[in-house]
Amino acid sequence: MLNKKRLLAPGPTPVPERVRLALAQDMIHHRKPEFKAIMAQVQQRLKKLFGTTQPVMPLACSGTGVMTAAVTNLFTAGEKVLVIEAGKFGERWGEICEASNIRVEKLTLDWGKAASAEAVANMLDMHPDCTGVLIQLSETSTGVLHPVDEIARVTKDHDVLLVVDGISAVSISPCKMDEWGIDCLLTGSQKGLMLPPGLGLIACSERAWKKAESVTPSCFYFNLRAEKQKISQDQTLFTTPVSLIVGLNESLAMFEETGFDTIFRKQWALTMMARTAATEMGLELLAKDHFTWGLTSVLVPENVDAGEVLEYAKENFGVILAGGQAHMKGRLIRIGHMGWVDWADLAAGLHALAEGCKACGGNINSGYLEKGLQAYHSALNASDLS
Amino acid sequence: MLNKKRLLAPGPTPVPERVRLALAQDMIHHRKPEFKAIMAQVQQRLKKLFGTTQPVMPLACSGTGVMTAAVTNLFTAGEKVLVIEAGKFGERWGEICEASNIRVEKLTLDWGKAASAEAVANMLDMHPDCTGVLIQLSETSTGVLHPVDEIARVTKDHDVLLVVDGISAVSISPCKMDEWGIDCLLTGSQKGLMLPPGLGLIACSERAWKKAESVTPSCFYFNLRAEKQKISQDQTLFTTPVSLIVGLNESLAMFEETGFDTIFRKQWALTMMARTAATEMGLELLAKDHFTWGLTSVLVPENVDAGEVLEYAKENFGVILAGGQAHMKGRLIRIGHMGWVDWADLAAGLHALAEGCKACGGNINSGYLEKGLQAYHSALNASDLS
Repeated sequence: MLNKKRLLAPGPTPVPERVRLALAQDMIHHRKPEFKAIMAQVQQRLKKLFGTTQPVMPLACSGTGVMTAAVTNLFTAGEKVLVIEAGKFGERWGEICEASNIRVEKLTLDWGKAASAEAVANMLDMHPDCTGVLIQLSETSTGVLHPVDEIARVTKDHDVLLVVDGISAVSISPCKMDEWGIDCLLTGSQKGLMLPPGLGLIACSERAWKKAESVTPSCFYFNLRAEKQKISQDQTLFTTPVSLIVGLNESLAMFEETGFDTIFRKQWALTMMARTAATEMGLELLAKDHFTWGLTSVLVPENVDAGEVLEYAKENFGVILAGGQAHMKGRLIRIGHMGWVDWADLAAGLHALAEGCKACGGNINSGYLEKGLQAYHSALNASDLS
Repeated sequence: MLNKKRLLAPGPTPVPERVRLALAQDMIHHRKPEFKAIMAQVQQRLKKLFGTTQPVMPLACSGTGVMTAAVTNLFTAGEKVLVIEAGKFGERWGEICEASNIRVEKLTLDWGKAASAEAVANMLDMHPDCTGVLIQLSETSTGVLHPVDEIARVTKDHDVLLVVDGISAVSISPCKMDEWGIDCLLTGSQKGLMLPPGLGLIACSERAWKKAESVTPSCFYFNLRAEKQKISQDQTLFTTPVSLIVGLNESLAMFEETGFDTIFRKQWALTMMARTAATEMGLELLAKDHFTWGLTSVLVPENVDAGEVLEYAKENFGVILAGGQAHMKGRLIRIGHMGWVDWADLAAGLHALAEGCKACGGNINSGYLEKGLQAYHSALNASDLS
């Protein structure tokens, strides 16, 4: 009872009480009218969330599952795609393609860097046999936000499909599928949507559906054309993860009540708060220019072990932060501030980070917390999001 | 408030309050010690449930997903397997194999019939190039229980893998993976385990693991060898469906407190109750000899439409029963009595069935309810389960 537990990882994220009570409702049958009515409402709300007129299909799987569904329904063995590899989840696109015998060209970037539209255009010019570009909107391993809106203009010009992993971006920062020209957008339940893991969401553009007609899905479990037919009846192809859909409807109701503009403004303000506070502490931000709005990646001082800081924050402050993955392990700390996390939770997280760094031998400048909070208020009250 | 709702479908099934409250707990991180401790306990409990010393791996997917995982990790394109096709889920084995370019021989049986060990042996003698037999323990579309223990002796003699879909059987009737000689056993969360849909469970024998070493999984999302390595650290390969694992631990605690023998005895007694009552009503049972312990399939009178009976039971009694699938639609009613369903729930279901049949023009003999309950008590108190 000394510390409350605060989960500030970039997924899974805390689940609001309203959603948890929805998850705790007794079971209803997924093929009966009572459930179909819920799914119909979820559909309407998901279309707004994705910014699309196309159906948004729920799949019972983790984020990697829905990425697998995208690859195996849009591309055939032997085809070639361009993968933007700027972190662990970019690498995952490549791994999924290779497991499906889809050839991969890579635009590889240092962790912390975003892809430019020019670099993507150059790669597509050099490899005109690529039929798709696979990218993250938010690369969760680095906290980078790729300029997907600009890249979408390039993929449209080159007539290749743009497949976007929006797992730590959709519901966190603007992502307008139809307006931007994304051909396949997917996300997961356990980030901005404030739900437990286990549900993937995916939508395809008209162009992507046309392409999918020529592809025989290589994995029986992931069949988007059959799912599309089913979702038109407010159903899923196989047994629906009923509770997660009921919870999703509650979560989306909360978004509707608050308004997406307000949520995005909040996410931007939390990001300004985290970046300002970390900079004031004297820490280096990994993503310098193109940064995501739901997590902030901070390099710990050279003489400090990030793993020890995480342990200290957890044991002494009840705060769960995330470390770096792969070669960034021990060097990086990722502060999740997406979904059901507010300014006071983030303040707790930043204080735990600062105290952890100090306890592990790092120098931390004072004044970071109030400056961070000032940045939050300024950003929240600014007339526009920039 | 006139009728309580009673879900008596063969999955999803009602979720006990204890489990629903576990599902409603706030999120914890799937890579941290607090969660690993839960997963370690779940592992020990699942091994008892499956009757195996092998790890039981949880996957974020529906039942069809975990069936897909079995096929794509144990067999390679071009191999041939024998599928026991005695209903919709036997057909699904065939569909999954065909999508994976695995050749299929079929032992096809009329709906309501069980496969015999002799017939399986004959098929394997005729097709010695088959490397596996794929079967349901309980065929949910018909209510048949295949004699998997006897068939396991045949597959051992023929040195082929026995892959068993235990989705509506595991935790409902005895299924001893190691003792019987099952090579791959799988189940889902939404039947006897009293959880929402969205979690698959799968275990492999030593022989199956050896075979898996020669197979490159064709779907990136389903990689059992990598999952095996992860579960040895109380982890899953991709993001864990945390809430379902927390709920599963609570559900398995309830099984432990009551004892599997008592649960199986209860399931047998409910089955005797349903079969006795339906027979007393004058209705015909679809599965004559080999019947499963978690659902009972009843043919409605010739002049009655099963769909109308279901609707009547739902509207007038708050009881959700299931209809027949494929060609049995309109003819069959399936009464689910697995998991969090007791004798009084089943009595309500049987009464709703009888009244529904009457309202739709069928003749129903009286006296069925008390005779059904007598059968329940006799079976529950019998000295052994036979």
